[in-house]
Amino acid sequence: MKQKVFLILVAGFMLFSGAVQAQDKKYPEQEPMTHAMSEFWLPRPNAVTPGSIVTNTAPSDAIVLFNGKDLSAWQNMKGEAARWDVHHGVMTVVREAGSIRTKEEFGSFQLHLEWYVPRAASGEKQSRGNSGVYLQGIYELQIIDDYSEETYANGMAASIYKQTAPLVSPIRKPGEWNVYDIIYTAPVFKEDGTYLYRPRVTVLFNGVLVQNNTEIRGTTPYVGFPRVVKHGDGPIMLQSHGDPVSFRNIWIRRL
Amino acid sequence: MKQKVFLILVAGFMLFSGAVQAQDKKYPEQEPMTHAMSEFWLPRPNAVTPGSIVTNTAPSDAIVLFNGKDLSAWQNMKGEAARWDVHHGVMTVVREAGSIRTKEEFGSFQLHLEWYVPRAASGEKQSRGNSGVYLQGIYELQIIDDYSEETYANGMAASIYKQTAPLVSPIRKPGEWNVYDIIYTAPVFKEDGTYLYRPRVTVLFNGVLVQNNTEIRGTTPYVGFPRVVKHGDGPIMLQSHGDPVSFRNIWIRRL
Amino acid sequence: MKQKVFLILVAGFMLFSGAVQAQDKKYPEQEPMTHAMSEFWLPRPNAVTPGSIVTNTAPSDAIVLFNGKDLSAWQNMKGEAARWDVHHGVMTVVREAGSIRTKEEFGSFQLHLEWYVPRAASGEKQSRGNSGVYLQGIYELQIIDDYSEETYANGMAASIYKQTAPLVSPIRKPGEWNVYDIIYTAPVFKEDGTYLYRPRVTVLFNGVLVQNNTEIRGTTPYVGFPRVVKHGDGPIMLQSHGDPVSFRNIWIRRL
Amino acid sequence: MKQKVFLILVAGFMLFSGAVQAQDKKYPEQEPMTHAMSEFWLPRPNAVTPGSIVTNTAPSDAIVLFNGKDLSAWQNMKGEAARWDVHHGVMTVVREAGSIRTKEEFGSFQLHLEWYVPRAASGEKQSRGNSGVYLQGIYELQIIDDYSEETYANGMAASIYKQTAPLVSPIRKPGEWNVYDIIYTAPVFKEDGTYLYRPRVTVLFNGVLVQNNTEIRGTTPYVGFPRVVKHGDGPIMLQSHGDPVSFRNIWIRRL
Repeated sequence: MKQKVFLILVAGFMLFSGAVQAQDKKYPEQEPMTHAMSEFWLPRPNAVTPGSIVTNTAPSDAIVLFNGKDLSAWQNMKGEAARWDVHHGVMTVVREAGSIRTKEEFGSFQLHLEWYVPRAASGEKQSRGNSGVYLQGIYELQIIDDYSEETYANGMAASIYKQTAPLVSPIRKPGEWNVYDIIYTAPVFKEDGTYLYRPRVTVLFNGVLVQNNTEIRGTTPYVGFPRVVKHGDGPIMLQSHGDPVSFRNIWIRRL
Repeated sequence: MKQKVFLILVAGFMLFSGAVQAQDKKYPEQEPMTHAMSEFWLPRPNAVTPGSIVTNTAPSDAIVLFNGKDLSAWQNMKGEAARWDVHHGVMTVVREAGSIRTKEEFGSFQLHLEWYVPRAASGEKQSRGNSGVYLQGIYELQIIDDYSEETYANGMAASIYKQTAPLVSPIRKPGEWNVYDIIYTAPVFKEDGTYLYRPRVTVLFNGVLVQNNTEIRGTTPYVGFPRVVKHGDGPIMLQSHGDPVSFRNIWIRRL
Repeated sequence: MKQKVFLILVAGFMLFSGAVQAQDKKYPEQEPMTHAMSEFWLPRPNAVTPGSIVTNTAPSDAIVLFNGKDLSAWQNMKGEAARWDVHHGVMTVVREAGSIRTKEEFGSFQLHLEWYVPRAASGEKQSRGNSGVYLQGIYELQIIDDYSEETYANGMAASIYKQTAPLVSPIRKPGEWNVYDIIYTAPVFKEDGTYLYRPRVTVLFNGVLVQNNTEIRGTTPYVGFPRVVKHGDGPIMLQSHGDPVSFRNIWIRRL
Repeated sequence: MKQKVFLILVAGFMLFSGAVQAQDKKYPEQEPMTHAMSEFWLPRPNAVTPGSIVTNTAPSDAIVLFNGKDLSAWQNMKGEAARWDVHHGVMTVVREAGSIRTKEEFGSFQLHLEWYVPRAASGEKQSRGNSGVYLQGIYELQIIDDYSEETYANGMAASIYKQTAPLVSPIRKPGEWNVYDIIYTAPVFKEDGTYLYRPRVTVLFNGVLVQNNTEIRGTTPYVGFPRVVKHGDGPIMLQSHGDPVSFRNIWIRRL
């Protein structure tokens, strides 16, 4: 993600804990880092060819977040209408429209979504088919075309961005649909704004386990360490990184 | 499960910890229980209608345990050839042949399998379409037709038998295929034979989350409390409870 | 503990979850058990001789629950004045006065207390120097003189009663003070009244680790399985089981 | 700690996993960091005045690591005799002698030790009474006189160095003995050298809880992110940072 986008996001709905906000002038500021300091290329997840396409439609207790017809469940980061493209049952990033998020907010959930990078995608590393699913609007599960162009391990598709690489890499090539099945357990905070229990996530990527109840250590910034910010329920956010990534068949179940 | 079958299983490959085996005559024996004492009918998981059928074939790094043609990956509980029926790409319990288990043994794994109870199934409660998947040959994830006939919550399909009911009940009716996607983390034992880390399991049942990193407390007997028995890798075991349950598309990935 | 006492306790302040309360007549009741069915004698914790007496007085951020002078921090189970005996800096169970609990309620905490069984104690097994510390008023950490008279392992001093035996048994003999240092993490519940995160407890018994972040599975009844009951903050409760157990130097820190 | 010391340590006995060791030239190296990038000054743990001195001598099942007389249980980092000073029942860092470690190696354990910084200690921040206890020779629990001179929160006494600050700060002033009671659970590794279960630690500092089953994320270097290195049992290591820190009453129990 671009840090700029994240700061807008934060201003939109995140609650900083008092502890973190407190800035007593006598203490040193943390020294700035560069983005490359938190990029790990090794060890690299093994490539796996996934099985046949999974067509897992919404069960009866799911909330359908995209039915192929309209963006009525979504808004942009200012709370206005979401202006992504909808055609042929598919919604696609529109660069100028920015990131979008669900109107509803969620705690723990099971989320299904399918994403697609067009065959003509270009760009290098993190500029190729880049998007992301933000769990509770905060924690990024990476979407990127690392099939065509390698990137750092903790920035690959299905990584917890800048934290935890996927166990293996079962990505499909551009022009084919990829599937995420996500089981997310929301964090529990202490009164002082630190985690009592960290958020955790399990991800099946094209039916293959890539995150196994992985603990999320905090925010997923482009630069620097994860940070702990106290928050309650939040939306599902889909990132516009400028690249024309498409989505379909999105549904969620509250846990 | 029937206790008798389990004892055979135990005799076959399980290692009791010395601590548990020790029987000092001066201490009282634990008082016997009845099977009904560990059966909980309430609270009842909500019924959910699952989405369309999932056809998730084996990824490239999976071991195919049943390819629709033969039982070469399986043996009976005595280590002899597995004599279940194989027809039309489906394998079916043969009562006289008993339970079967894989020749290979596994630690932590991702397991996919599909199971089916015929439309003509009869019997009441735990006598209707009853089978089970034993994780590492020890911990039963229940298979049963509780669509047609209600049973106790911690004995429903996708329960950790006699321990943990599924979160919801997305079972399909007899004559339709059901799908289990199982993520299992093997236990770690202390030297004294007790758990340092208990086994844990996540289960998607027809694509719907029903066990979310559930801790398994020990064995899953028909009568009495779970027991802790030290063990290493173990097979996948499929139970013959006498009912004609069928299976297809079984594959496993070591984690 | 005696079940009768517990039921009074429950009536006093516990909130049953709706799910557990629901009693739909068409489902079978769970079959009654006897107390001996949940008593495990083996394996037995090894006896350990503890080091010299720990005199760990209250740090500056602790709430002193007993200062050696009065019972102003305590009340009986009906909310009336606590009528235990106070002499020489020590408070002692008075059988007719019943169990007592703190006026304040707590979530997660660090608790220090010292307890004592007189040299003249008599009685067999669970009738000898029997008392208990109830964490949040619900989960019993056992107090008993098992130095003089053996009892079942999951009913020994520092057991989570009827659940988890201590790792070892560093109890001192009657006429000497025993020390508990308890670190308790309160559970987190889902809306349906089941645990999202179970309560956990670490206990040093005379300076020796006996419970190491042990998960508590539910209530600690004399008869039957642990039950899950939704609750919020609760008091520290000290049990009157009729035996003349004494206490001193009790303090608590909120975590 | 100084990074130099740590590299010697690593060379001495640590096993890097193959995955981490692999250095394929075509991938970018991680960009170097400075030590200040991983120093967090806020939020700051509250100061707490501890209770009276704890004199918790070894229980009968402990291994006494320092009995006040000699260093027979210790060696220097090259495996030679440990040449720290022993007088009046106390052992003290000798700068030229370097860090020392136990001859025995340990998995999970309960460790008691007492440490002392002389009244005349001088130096600023991390140069004042600096030492450290390395759990399994790898993970540093910080020792430092931050009573006299403030330092960054994740470098204070009882911090998991550069990772997790203590919950509160119950340190005693120079010239008084401080006490650590440490409960450490060793990690469990997957075959690929990553954690299946991370190491965890609970610490009472002068009888006050400061680490509550804290997960350790990897090594504790002076510069950069924690790293994951596969290892088995390891020694208790006491760091010589050049400052005259003293120790007494050291014992350990295997868990």
